[in-house]
This record gives sequence, structure tokens and C-alpha cells, in this order.
Amino acid sequence: MFPFAAPVRDLRFVLEELLEYRSLALPGFEEASPDLVEAVLEEAAKLAGEVWGPLNASGDQQGCARRDDGSVTLPDGFIEAYRAYAEGGWNGIGVSEALGGQGLPEVVASSVQEMLHGANMALGLCPMLTAGAIEALAHHGSDALKETYLPRLVEGSWTGTMNLTEPQAGSDLSRVRTRAVPCPDEEADRYRLFGQKIFITWGEHDAAENIIHLVLARKPDAPEGNKGISLFLVPKFLVNADGSLGERNDVVCASIEHKLGIHGSPTCTLSFGEGEGAIGYLVGEEGRGLNHMFTMMNEARHKVGIQGIGVAERACQHAFAYALDRVQGKVRGSDATISEHLDVRRMLLSMRARTDALRALALYCAAELDVARHAGDASERKAAQARVDVLIPVVKSFSTDQAVDIASMGVQVHGGMGYIEETGAAQLLRDARIAPIYEGTNGIQSLDLAGRKLQRDGGAAFNDLLGRVEATAEALRGNGELAALGESLAAGAADLRAAMAIVLEQGSDPESGVDAIQAYATPFLNLAGHVLCAWQMGQSALKAAAAQAAGSGEPFYQAKLVAADFALRQWLPAGRANRSVIDAGMASLASFDVKAI
Amino acid sequence: MFPFAAPVRDLRFVLEELLEYRSLALPGFEEASPDLVEAVLEEAAKLAGEVWGPLNASGDQQGCARRDDGSVTLPDGFIEAYRAYAEGGWNGIGVSEALGGQGLPEVVASSVQEMLHGANMALGLCPMLTAGAIEALAHHGSDALKETYLPRLVEGSWTGTMNLTEPQAGSDLSRVRTRAVPCPDEEADRYRLFGQKIFITWGEHDAAENIIHLVLARKPDAPEGNKGISLFLVPKFLVNADGSLGERNDVVCASIEHKLGIHGSPTCTLSFGEGEGAIGYLVGEEGRGLNHMFTMMNEARHKVGIQGIGVAERACQHAFAYALDRVQGKVRGSDATISEHLDVRRMLLSMRARTDALRALALYCAAELDVARHAGDASERKAAQARVDVLIPVVKSFSTDQAVDIASMGVQVHGGMGYIEETGAAQLLRDARIAPIYEGTNGIQSLDLAGRKLQRDGGAAFNDLLGRVEATAEALRGNGELAALGESLAAGAADLRAAMAIVLEQGSDPESGVDAIQAYATPFLNLAGHVLCAWQMGQSALKAAAAQAAGSGEPFYQAKLVAADFALRQWLPAGRANRSVIDAGMASLASFDVKAI
Repeated sequence: MFPFAAPVRDLRFVLEELLEYRSLALPGFEEASPDLVEAVLEEAAKLAGEVWGPLNASGDQQGCARRDDGSVTLPDGFIEAYRAYAEGGWNGIGVSEALGGQGLPEVVASSVQEMLHGANMALGLCPMLTAGAIEALAHHGSDALKETYLPRLVEGSWTGTMNLTEPQAGSDLSRVRTRAVPCPDEEADRYRLFGQKIFITWGEHDAAENIIHLVLARKPDAPEGNKGISLFLVPKFLVNADGSLGERNDVVCASIEHKLGIHGSPTCTLSFGEGEGAIGYLVGEEGRGLNHMFTMMNEARHKVGIQGIGVAERACQHAFAYALDRVQGKVRGSDATISEHLDVRRMLLSMRARTDALRALALYCAAELDVARHAGDASERKAAQARVDVLIPVVKSFSTDQAVDIASMGVQVHGGMGYIEETGAAQLLRDARIAPIYEGTNGIQSLDLAGRKLQRDGGAAFNDLLGRVEATAEALRGNGELAALGESLAAGAADLRAAMAIVLEQGSDPESGVDAIQAYATPFLNLAGHVLCAWQMGQSALKAAAAQAAGSGEPFYQAKLVAADFALRQWLPAGRANRSVIDAGMASLASFDVKAI
Repeated sequence: MFPFAAPVRDLRFVLEELLEYRSLALPGFEEASPDLVEAVLEEAAKLAGEVWGPLNASGDQQGCARRDDGSVTLPDGFIEAYRAYAEGGWNGIGVSEALGGQGLPEVVASSVQEMLHGANMALGLCPMLTAGAIEALAHHGSDALKETYLPRLVEGSWTGTMNLTEPQAGSDLSRVRTRAVPCPDEEADRYRLFGQKIFITWGEHDAAENIIHLVLARKPDAPEGNKGISLFLVPKFLVNADGSLGERNDVVCASIEHKLGIHGSPTCTLSFGEGEGAIGYLVGEEGRGLNHMFTMMNEARHKVGIQGIGVAERACQHAFAYALDRVQGKVRGSDATISEHLDVRRMLLSMRARTDALRALALYCAAELDVARHAGDASERKAAQARVDVLIPVVKSFSTDQAVDIASMGVQVHGGMGYIEETGAAQLLRDARIAPIYEGTNGIQSLDLAGRKLQRDGGAAFNDLLGRVEATAEALRGNGELAALGESLAAGAADLRAAMAIVLEQGSDPESGVDAIQAYATPFLNLAGHVLCAWQMGQSALKAAAAQAAGSGEPFYQAKLVAADFALRQWLPAGRANRSVIDAGMASLASFDVKAI
């Protein structure tokens, strides 16, 4: 198993040169200097490379196990690695100081997350879910709940989970049946929960002293459908008034799943209320559970995109290391490593260029999140949030689809060795494959983009982004050797504009709109992903060319120019084909007989 | 685990309507009537559905194990399932009657193979390797070797293996080091082999009485490189003069691999000559081992393509069954299965249309193989072989790349359940993932097509195929409702023609030609795969429209029209983007610094 080295230089390039550390200029980040950020990245890289990374393969091989008492054994070393993370203060780096965190910008927190997911995606899921719980509580919890639970979640001594799915309720959460019965004689907003939740990530483990489950459930008198669903906090151990842990709550891990990948992450079926009912506390408003959950899901989706990029980065590192080592065939008469064969170089460059592009776009989105949260001006915050809203489904879907493909290409670079588990390349493919599914399938993301986000403002926020893409295309066109990249980007932007018009027109029919958009949503998102990523690589080329013009001879910049050339002239054309797909129309999609085909 | 039903109706459509049973009109197939072929398909479907299919999941979960004595345990039921196959006479259906087979056309044998691989790919590998051994022996073995080994291999009571790879010799077989030392005091062409071979599929097992290893090795005085490599036959048990089994040969299974998939197929490291040396017999000419091996590899590559299609078919069946069963969300106000949601329908249709197209192209290639072997006219045979030669790398690569994608899409259709191993969708992805790697990686296939097959006749055979594609485009254009499909196919054919011209021009430079072609080979093959598959779907649309015009109301034909519409207007445009990739040129590919990027 090849060791993982966190891509500090690449992350710094994005933060410093592409994003010009603009998050640091926002109110609230006065104390976060570039030097501090770089020190944080270096320290995180150590944790990722030295502590989390070495456990990736062993965690996959060993996996998790459920004991007869319902407790769950993690792979060797995971508890210590998680504690090193929590004790190092990493869990709070992106959490505001008011809540006990370090309050660093989202671009920094996202960079650290990428490193940790690249090092060990299965372990990375634990704090990812905790972050969701913190978000939900911070936004919607009562002061009492916040006071009791937030500090421990932020420091990471307790972890959090999201309990949404039930066997009959997956993408369609309106079907949730878990019941929450009010406790009449006890304190207000206290309930007893009964039901079963499946696919609960890190739903049971011993790495933390307590686990705080956030659970979607229905009160007995609640209406059918979405509006009857409320959000409840159900701790594994009840918490006494003084903050100490009390008795075990009536929630138990009934089984864990045998999955394709992320074996080091326990995916649990949780049974609530096998006895008297699991004690739970209402979070936020009754009947608004789904809305509250989606507050945090939006950011969780960004994190899943980041996760894909982490795994893609590791796949690149594996493939490059193998290709530089493996001698096969000859080039110009001499023994050669496979990294010298053009067809292998095509794969390596494709993997690297795409990973760079996905990272740049995801961190661009993180920087917009910083503006949306921290800018002094309300209209600036609102406009940034609108851009974030359209970017997030792209970052989630496109990064994860591409990560699967990049990991699969990494297997291919290894040839036969790639299919052997001990090489480690196959694990990355298995791990990556969950990311297009969870936190809303990629199909759901595309509907969110094309059916909801695009329609609700008539494409205004998306148009704003497209204007930025076109400005970059213009800058490239005027930049001598980069002119061809500018032409390519401009053509991609024109395709995306035309596709947007079609999707908006579909949505304008109140009768059939939402259904019709479904047919175009995925190709539209794929087109958007290609164009937005190409845009970032165009920016990257401009910065690299500027660095060279200023005299830098660092091979890094030449490499960025090559990656940009590949992204804009080899990768973007493939993505542009989605316009033809949309143009051709989708009439047959609605009509065919699924049973006859 | 959803049961597998062999796609008899779809196979019949290809054999009867697309290929018009033209193989049956060839000399030597006088006794093979359409009725006989259909009876064969029905019987094979029973074996696939009732015997092989039910062992697919259990075989994956249980896997193979090596005992301390070097023997290998197969998953429960595999020995019986293999024997049912051999005793049913299935191993010889495509083998000529002169060699003891049934001498049915390759289109029929390929159809049966597709069913069996769909049912159980891991088990299907065993006879696939035996077929390679039969081919090599039949073409290159001495009469004595043929007499001793062929009858038992053809009946399937013995199985065969291909021993090519060594740790330092994968894609580059010139590095083979296994030694074959002549036995001076014994009979001629008898050698003792010493060395280690890795990745030997079904290299050791108890399903057959004997295993016949075909092994690449070097004589002590052989020159370096390809020309020093000869082919040897090394039986697991030596064979006495009377045909009975003698003592155990000096070849042992040293270990088996822990792989991403095909767990039911034992992938062995074989040690030859840990003692006095493994007895082996020279097959064919000294120093021509690689050439002899490639005789059979060409057809083995076709079989790997077929294997991909079998797995893709099973992935379709799983996804359709799940989508028709799983209720989520509402369509037009009513509870709906996910098969009613357009974004899911897009995935289902994409999976089905692509699988249909790959099948039609692979069986077209099989029909050309029949002509190449059996046509009365030598020039007809030669022209057909030339088409086969360019089709095989496309069938191998494109079918297997697409199969991985189709299986991955199948996982996605299942949502979270797709990631859980017991569902069975993930196994198909894991199994499929080997096919782009073995029997020559897909990169090697693309070099074979663009660098060798296309160059050696200046594109003549490929041009012949392109002419057929264009004729189909014309027929569609003149066919009322299908005219738009014709436009699309014509545009694809024009792209392929332009790309061919670029690739031929690259190859015309004797200095840099082969290197330069490497940069274009994979996009060229991908473009060719899309256009050739679209062509077959165009043919399919013509036949389905004709059946409807003749009054057939069978929903099957309407479904074929929908699948063709998807293939030509949604899938082909994505493939056409490969032309832009080729047009953009690949200058950066040769120059970038792998260590700096």
C-alpha cells in the first residue's frame, strides 16, 4: 500500500493563487493570516499522512463487527486515530468561535477535510456526520439543547449521526414511520421514540463517550407526508443535569451492513424503543423536521463532494507512483516505465487534471460559503448564497461521479495488479462508489439543480456564474498562448447557456414542468460540471502563466498549464456532448414500457 | 439476489432478424437449422438460469481457498455446476466436429457463452480458458499432442489454462523468464520447466481430472526478447501412453489472489519446477510462442467482450427488477415505483440500449468469424477475417468498458441498497472490473486497432465496415420516422472517417508513428465503438420498424425502437466527442513531467 501524502502544495495553490485568500479578508477572520492557514495545512497533512493514512488499508481489510450486545468493534487503531483528531482540536476548526470552535474559514476547513478523506475516507465519515449534527443543533436547537450537547460535539468527545432512512423511506423521506410519542408527565419537548432506521453511518462505536442521534420521526397525531415529520435528538447515553452521562437510552444497533467499501465505517441499523421507548428531544419546530435536516444537508453535500476529491487525489498518487515504478516495454529503444507510454500518460494526465479541477471548483464554492456567512453587506451575502446553492449540487454530483471514474482509471493504470486487493487501488474504487449515492443520490442532486435551484430565480444565480466563466474565457483569449483554451471555454459556456434556456423553458410549464425537467437534469448537471471545472482550470492556467511570466521556473506551474490544456481541450469537449443530448430531446424517456424492454 | 433469466428473446432477435441466420448458410453448417439453434439456446438458458445462476452470489461470498498441500477449494456447487456443463456437451458446441465438438457456428457458441457469463462469470472463466487451450493446440500442436489432449479438453473432462504473466512480464511478455530445459535422454520436444507464473485463471482446482497448462517459456539458449519465447504444454498430471493419468507433474499452486471480484474463479500463482522440473512439451515452433499464443488470444478477446455483455445483461435485469419493485415518491399524484421517474428511466434505458448494442456488435463479429472460417470462397474468407481483426479490439474494449459503466449504473439505480453486498448489484461491478484489464488491457486493444490493424492495410477493412455503417444511415434516412436516426448515424460515421484519416496520417511517419498513435488510440477506439454500436442499433430499428409494418404488435419491437432512438440520439453524441478530442491534438501528452504534476 502506497503511503498518502496530503497535497499541501496543490491546496495552497488554490487558496492563495486562485482564491487569493479572499476569505481571510472577511469580517470575523481578522486573526486568520495566510501564515496561520499554511501552518494549519501543514499540521493537518501530518495527521493525514502519519496517523489516518496508514490505517486505510488495514481498516478496509479488518472492517467493523457487531458484538452480540449490540456494541460495535472498529478496526484496530481507529479509536486512537479519531482521538488524535479530536484532541488536536481538528473537529472545531470550521466551527464558529461562539460555539467553541476555532472559527477558521470554510475554505480551510474544506482543505483539511479533503486531506483527511484522502487519508482515510471511512474514518473521515465520523466527523463529517458530527458536523451535520452540530449544524442542525446550532441552527434549530433550543438553548438548553445547545448548551448540553454542542460543546461536546464541537470538541469531538461526542459524535453525531443523521437518522433519516427507513426501509421504505430512502430518497422519499415523506414515508418515514418512526414514531415520537410525547411524554406527558415529564418535561416539555421530551418524547419516546419507536422505530427502525437503516444505513446510519457511525451509528454505534466506542470512539466517543456518547453518540448524539438526530432522528426524523412523526408524532402520533402528525399528518401524512413531509409536513408530519419532526426532528429529534436522541443521545446514546442520557445526559444528567450536571452534564455527566446517565443511563443508556433505549436505542441499540441491531445489525451492521456488509458493504462494497468504506468497511472501516460502521453502517448501522438502529432500533429505537425496543423497550419503553428511546428518550428524544424535539429540535426546532414540530413538522419542520425535513426543512431542518436540509439546512445541514446542503453543507453535508459539499462535504461529500470534498470526500470524492480526497479519494481521487489518493487514486492519482497511487497511479503515478505505480506508473513511475513499473517497467514494461520500450520507448525509443530503451526499457521504460509505463509512465513513458503515451496511452498511460493520457490516463495519468486525465486523472490529475480532473482532480485539480474538481478541487478548485469545490474550494471556490467553499469561498463563496465564507462570503455568504461573513460578508458585511447583506446583499453580498445573499448573492453568494445563491451561487452556493447552485454550485453545491454540482460539487456533490460531479466530484463524486468523477471520483469513481478516476479511481477506476487508477485501477486500470495498475493493470492486473489493480485488481488485486493488496495493491490498494481497488479499495479506492470501492470506497468512492458510495459517494454518488448518499446524501441525496446524484440524480436527486441534478433535480435539485435543474428543477429547483435554477427555476426559483429564473437562472439568475447560474447566470451570474456563467458571466464569470465568460470573463475567464475572454481573459484567456487575450493571453497569447492560452487563446485556444479561451475558445474552448467560450464554446462550453455557450453550450451551457443554450442548455440552461431549454431547462428553464421546460420548467415554465406548471403542469408538466417538474416531470419534464427530470429528463434533462442529469445531462444538464454533467454539462455544468464540465464547464465550471474547465473555468477553474482556465483560471489556473492564467495564474500559472502569470507566475511563469514573473520569472518562476517552478515545474509546478508548467504542470498546471499542461493540466489546464488537457481539461479545456480534451475533457471539456466530452462534456459538451451533453448539449447534443439535451438538444435531441427526451420524448422516448416518458413513453417506453419498462416491462417490455 | 435476483434470479438470472437468460435473454433468449434478445439473442434470437440478433441471430434471426439482424444476422438473418446467415452463418447457417455457410458450408459445414448444413445440419444446423434455425430450429436446432433455438433449441440449443433454450437448453443453454436452463443451464444458465437453473444451475449456474443460483451459484453466482454464494460463489462470490465464499470464494476459493488454497489448502496447505497446494490444492484449491472451489465454492460449494461449482464442481457440480461445471460437470453439468461438461456432461451436457456444452464445452464442444463451437468446436469443429473433426476435433470432437458439435461444430455449431460461432454466433451460437457466443450466444451460449453470453448466457453463462451472465449467470456466473467466475465459473464461465473455466471453459473460456479451456477454449483458448483447444485453439492453440488445434492450430499448433503436433499430432501426438492433439491426439492425447484434445479429446479430453473438448469434452471438458480436462480444463486448460494460459500461463503468460510473470511478476516482471505483464503487458510486456518479452520479459518472460520461465526456463524450459530440453530433456536430452528422453523423447524429443520434451522439456523441464522452471519458473513462476502469476494471475493464472483456474490454474488449480478439482472440477476436472486434469489441467493442461499452456506456458510461455524460454530455452536456455534462446535469444532475448519475443523471439526467444516458445510455447509449452504442461499437464498437471502426466498422461500415460494409454491415455490414463500418471504421476503428478512438478507444478504447484503456490498461492491464490485476493481480488476485487470473480471470487469464484481461482487466480493462481503457479510454481513450475520446485523439484526436478515440470515436464512440458513444445507446442508449435521454437521461438514462435508469442505468435502461437496470439492466435488464440484474438478469439479469447472476443470472448472477454462477450463476458462483459453477459454481466451487463445481468446488471440490467437486476436494475429493472428493483426499479419495478421499489416504491418511492409520486408521479402525477400517485405512489410510484422508481421505474416511473424519468431520471431513473434514463438510467434504465441507457443500460438496456447499450447492452443491446454491444450484443449486436459482438454477434456481428461472431458471424464474420463464421464467414472467415467457413465461406467457400477464399477471398470472402479473407475479407471477413480482415473485418474480424478490426472488430475484435473494439468488441473487447468497448464492451468491457461499457459493462463496467452499466454495472455501476445498476448500483446507482438501487440507491443505498446497491452499496450493500447482499443485493448483488455491487458484485456485478466488482466482477466486471477485471474485463478491461485481462487478455490485453483496453489500452493495448486500442493500440492494436489504431497502431497495427488500421495501419497494416491502410484502413481498408475498417473502410469496408464504415461503408456498411453509411449504407445503414442511408436506409434510415429513407425510412420516414427513422430519418433523424439516419442523420445522427451519418454524422457519427463522418466523424469516424475523419478520425481514421488523422490516425492513418500519424502512422505514416515511420520514425514517430507508433508513438504518436498511442496518444490517439483510446479516443479513436471509443469513437469507433460508439459508431459501430449505433450502426447495429440502426439496423435494429430498421428490423423492428419492418416487423411493425408487417403487423406485429409485439411490445418487444416498440422497445427496440426506443432503445435505438436512445442509442443513436443520446448515446452516440457523447461518443462523437472523441472526434473533438482527437482534433484538438495531444501535444501535451508527450511533454509533461510526470514527477511534477
